[in-house]
Amino acid sequence: MPTVNRQIHLVSRPTGEPTLQSFKLVETPLPELGAHQVLVRNHYLSLDPYMRGRMDDRKSYAAPQPLDTVMIGATVGEVVASTSEPFRSGDKVAAMGGWQEYVLVDASHLKHTTPTGGVSLRKVDATQIPLSAHLGALGIPGITAWMGVTQICMPRQDETLVVSSAAGAVGGAVGQLARQRGCRVLGIAGGPEKCRYVKEELGFDECIDYKRHKELRSLAGALAKAAPAGIDCCFENVGSMIFDAALSAMNDFGRVALCGLIAGYNGEPNPITYPALILGKRLRMQGFIVSDRLDQWPAALEELRTLLLAGKLRYRETVTAGLERAPQAFLDLLKGRSIGKALVKLV
Amino acid sequence: MPTVNRQIHLVSRPTGEPTLQSFKLVETPLPELGAHQVLVRNHYLSLDPYMRGRMDDRKSYAAPQPLDTVMIGATVGEVVASTSEPFRSGDKVAAMGGWQEYVLVDASHLKHTTPTGGVSLRKVDATQIPLSAHLGALGIPGITAWMGVTQICMPRQDETLVVSSAAGAVGGAVGQLARQRGCRVLGIAGGPEKCRYVKEELGFDECIDYKRHKELRSLAGALAKAAPAGIDCCFENVGSMIFDAALSAMNDFGRVALCGLIAGYNGEPNPITYPALILGKRLRMQGFIVSDRLDQWPAALEELRTLLLAGKLRYRETVTAGLERAPQAFLDLLKGRSIGKALVKLV
Repeated sequence: MPTVNRQIHLVSRPTGEPTLQSFKLVETPLPELGAHQVLVRNHYLSLDPYMRGRMDDRKSYAAPQPLDTVMIGATVGEVVASTSEPFRSGDKVAAMGGWQEYVLVDASHLKHTTPTGGVSLRKVDATQIPLSAHLGALGIPGITAWMGVTQICMPRQDETLVVSSAAGAVGGAVGQLARQRGCRVLGIAGGPEKCRYVKEELGFDECIDYKRHKELRSLAGALAKAAPAGIDCCFENVGSMIFDAALSAMNDFGRVALCGLIAGYNGEPNPITYPALILGKRLRMQGFIVSDRLDQWPAALEELRTLLLAGKLRYRETVTAGLERAPQAFLDLLKGRSIGKALVKLV
Repeated sequence: MPTVNRQIHLVSRPTGEPTLQSFKLVETPLPELGAHQVLVRNHYLSLDPYMRGRMDDRKSYAAPQPLDTVMIGATVGEVVASTSEPFRSGDKVAAMGGWQEYVLVDASHLKHTTPTGGVSLRKVDATQIPLSAHLGALGIPGITAWMGVTQICMPRQDETLVVSSAAGAVGGAVGQLARQRGCRVLGIAGGPEKCRYVKEELGFDECIDYKRHKELRSLAGALAKAAPAGIDCCFENVGSMIFDAALSAMNDFGRVALCGLIAGYNGEPNPITYPALILGKRLRMQGFIVSDRLDQWPAALEELRTLLLAGKLRYRETVTAGLERAPQAFLDLLKGRSIGKALVKLV
């Protein structure tokens, strides 16, 4: 049994763009296992854009990450010791284990759900499905995609859906879920490599490289061209000109699932420039967070698992090895440098 | 029977703020009554902010008003001649009669509904209810209020609702409908006279004079103070800093009925500055137009009529006499100079 646990702490709050200075590698003793506790060795850490919001002090949908504590985040790993009945050494689990090598989970009040807001624990199937997929296509990104598509966008056969950050873990699942529902699916992503991945590997009908468009008019024109029948559903992860362009190409009575606004996460202005589009087109726009509806997770996971096993839910991972590289990998994610699910591999 | 009909035509499209130059008084011969036609003498014309949108050429939710034709708009009046069975001289009717003294309605394809987009006709009760009320509390403004409150805001007992342009025909009805549902109701209006009307005559719990607040922070603070439990429902008519402030004071899972954005009707920038509020608070925002759901009009009119007769739906009118004064009265409405329903009285 190890006695030392390496962790990444948040030690200062960034002003604007975060840097490595906000993070610190810390060695702490592993606490002893008490009653109803489970010690998990983390194999993969999940890196997600929402973590940027937690680095700030201001109220956000996620509570601020306290300073000088381990960065919160989803993990998958293996039970290495347990005094809690349902968990045994060797079990593969998903948890909110944070950026650290080991996590000690108090299992006395566990429910078999995984809220994003606390440390929880659930066993996962790592026989048919790669362990890391439980952080991506079968994890919070996949469930997020499912929820926005099925509960807010509610696309019908032959409708057109657009998703921004289409090469990301959420966006990629969104498009594939919509394709399953008979939709024409457009992605928006940055750069030719991402667009190729989105079209060729994920099977989107079109992918628009927003970096080729400096102005709203140009991007909106490209979207309109790619969506000759207009856009019925928008799954928004970015904001800024990208969101404005999507709104401009939407049809009357369209639905907008507002999932993320990464273009403003460093405090950049990120307005909706023309809300008259929402009014004139009678759009329905809804913000949502995956942890609000834990009751929907089983249905989401069931569909995602079925699609994954059938080869109809594809994904890539951008994997960085070593806990000490987690901060840089996270900064890279925020800069749009990863494709698919961003992970840190510890084992 | 008259032979001449006086009309106000739109003769040019404004750039920015409209002026009297865009309108022209025109005398035309009244066409002869054909089969299945009804000649109505207009008693009142309705002036509404949405008409500003129709003056422009760009696509809006309402089709552009063609140049050199009579300004479209809702009217109430009296049948003076009819070759259509259900209508007889002396009948009081509501119609989309436009800015003119008489309107000839082709009744051959009439349904008993009143779309805003065409000339239609329905008989109204002017015995128990003043004729002009069928353009306000019992007309499109009242139905608009009902639809946004009951179908989008869906306020529950003890929730807090805020409505901008609270002294207007729509806003005043919104607050009273929400009060009927057990809500705390806040209005936002410009100036002490309007706020007094909103609180003292309409019975809102509070009314905030936005003209006393130069900055978002100040207006948001006033709203937060007036809504100690936060805001659950927002019925938005204005946009701009007023909308931003309302969003900042909203509670998680709040509902926003987007009805109007008058602050941008002359082409002024009118962004939603912080869409992260929609995401973080998981708000549901929906744009709507009263004519989309004609099937809901009977239910709306039934409640509105019952409340009106019971003295629980109060309103004021700002009445201007004479067709030739309609353009100036309309400009005054856009400048926020009227209280309650803006009307032009012709008879």
